Amino acid sequence: MKIGILGYGNLAKGVECAIRQNDDMELAAVFTRRNPADVKIKTEGVNVYSVDDIVAHKDDIDVLVICGGSATDLPKQTPEYAKYFNVIDSFDTHARIPEHFANVDKAAKESGHTALISCGWDPGMFSLNRLYANAILPEGNDYTFWGKGVSQGHSDAIRRVEGVKNGKQYTIPVDSALEAVRNGDNPELTTRQKHTRECFVVPKEGADLDKIREEIVNMPNYFADYDTTVHFISEEEFEANHSGIPHGGFVFRSGVTGWNKENKHIIEYSIKLDSNPEFTASVLVAYARAIARLHSEGVTGCKTVFDIAPAYLTAMSDDEIRAHML
Amino acid sequence: MKIGILGYGNLAKGVECAIRQNDDMELAAVFTRRNPADVKIKTEGVNVYSVDDIVAHKDDIDVLVICGGSATDLPKQTPEYAKYFNVIDSFDTHARIPEHFANVDKAAKESGHTALISCGWDPGMFSLNRLYANAILPEGNDYTFWGKGVSQGHSDAIRRVEGVKNGKQYTIPVDSALEAVRNGDNPELTTRQKHTRECFVVPKEGADLDKIREEIVNMPNYFADYDTTVHFISEEEFEANHSGIPHGGFVFRSGVTGWNKENKHIIEYSIKLDSNPEFTASVLVAYARAIARLHSEGVTGCKTVFDIAPAYLTAMSDDEIRAHML
Repeated sequence: MKIGILGYGNLAKGVECAIRQNDDMELAAVFTRRNPADVKIKTEGVNVYSVDDIVAHKDDIDVLVICGGSATDLPKQTPEYAKYFNVIDSFDTHARIPEHFANVDKAAKESGHTALISCGWDPGMFSLNRLYANAILPEGNDYTFWGKGVSQGHSDAIRRVEGVKNGKQYTIPVDSALEAVRNGDNPELTTRQKHTRECFVVPKEGADLDKIREEIVNMPNYFADYDTTVHFISEEEFEANHSGIPHGGFVFRSGVTGWNKENKHIIEYSIKLDSNPEFTASVLVAYARAIARLHSEGVTGCKTVFDIAPAYLTAMSDDEIRAHML
Repeated sequence: MKIGILGYGNLAKGVECAIRQNDDMELAAVFTRRNPADVKIKTEGVNVYSVDDIVAHKDDIDVLVICGGSATDLPKQTPEYAKYFNVIDSFDTHARIPEHFANVDKAAKESGHTALISCGWDPGMFSLNRLYANAILPEGNDYTFWGKGVSQGHSDAIRRVEGVKNGKQYTIPVDSALEAVRNGDNPELTTRQKHTRECFVVPKEGADLDKIREEIVNMPNYFADYDTTVHFISEEEFEANHSGIPHGGFVFRSGVTGWNKENKHIIEYSIKLDSNPEFTASVLVAYARAIARLHSEGVTGCKTVFDIAPAYLTAMSDDEIRAHML
């Protein structure tokens, strides 16, 4: 199975690593908007090309993993490259998924390709767990918590504050809220009751720390609705302890069964990730396998994780998974 | 969607309750090996028939949920009734799944029906989570823990001990083992290190309690390999606190990613159930929906949970799930 990667940021680097962990796959090429000579990849013997030349490689690639951003890249890239390739992306702007799906579906059907959008962990594995749990327990409540982990958007917002040299923000689920959900209490939780936000800030020399703190904790949309803690640290401490991109989260379904709805059930799915982009990439690579297989069966158009039978994700045969995983 | 139930034990009663929670389904009939006049079901206006007359109802039922035992009932019943119905069972003898699959697949293909075997939570939802997590993190370790919950087989074993009037056994995962797995320590765990067993025993009058305790904790296959606690209680306490059938468990995947496998990831799925049979029944009913749909699409033969795309399980449309669950 020959995989192409479009882009070479953190997610793309994760895809490159994940391909190496799957014996039935190989990296065919990386495509970049930068000067290809400036992009050094890890895999030996694989070429980096300009994205302007991508169509010339359409017969060399089984699935193209598109590693652009959801705000402006993917809405254009995924429908465009679905004309020439089987494609997969991690589009994560939940509200715009129906529109993105329609655009990609049209392009993929017209060209006879297979596409998968919104793959990763949320959307992705979390969505799957919401769906399975809702189908099993139709009467109940859903809860999703994120963290502990780095929010890129909130870290960017901190770094835009005057006097801030560097900064990182961790989203943290509130333990008492997790416990109440786990106990089947079905709490109604406000934004403030679900998550706290913890910021590690490297100030510029001579900056007014109180002013920075006030500006962060009162920032509308990002921090005002949360209990936010701000820690000021040195550049050295930042490099030593806050250079990773961990993340994680929890999906719960709390439901009832029985003739009089007398029995409670809790389904909980959680992940704890040292590297958010590498885990997301690992999900993308497993689904790339599924997309290549569906395409070889003649399936075309756009899919989501809801449309893919689990057996398509693994390199093991149906006999093996029935014997060893069921 | 018209659902038939074969059998009327705890699992079947759970299926009856679950059907009532799904608006697109109705209970068509219950079939029993007992005298139908002796079987009183909860759903008004639905008939109970002898299993001897089941074939006469083959055109009235979209999916037959077979609620027999795995030891002797299901190996015969599921292939037999797949000749006349779309069928689903909860066959849970892991080692015999390939053989059972082959028998059911042959019967279903020859008669043009659709079948699903080994549905529930283990096998079932736990199997799905093992498969998804292995596909995402191909390098890692799997851990499954069961409980806290009632083991029917171990409770039966207790009740066979001389001097025991009634008894129930709870399987309990060891907290320190769960924590070690959650921390990514990848422990190698013996049987004794993974689970403990707790027994609540109502002794007969004048019974030798020390003898009962010794016989239980040293019982080969059932208790000898575990740390087992035996509590002697009154019939009243037994009825008040130990009449339920709770269960639960945990599935973990602990894996690594990165060019040098430097990043750890933990995926954890857990369930906490007030009623083991009602939860299993709820899974069966969601998959009955999928089987009816696959049959209407012309798919025949035997399937497992690995072969079913998640979207088939829900009553919601593809547009709805993309808009609200993804």
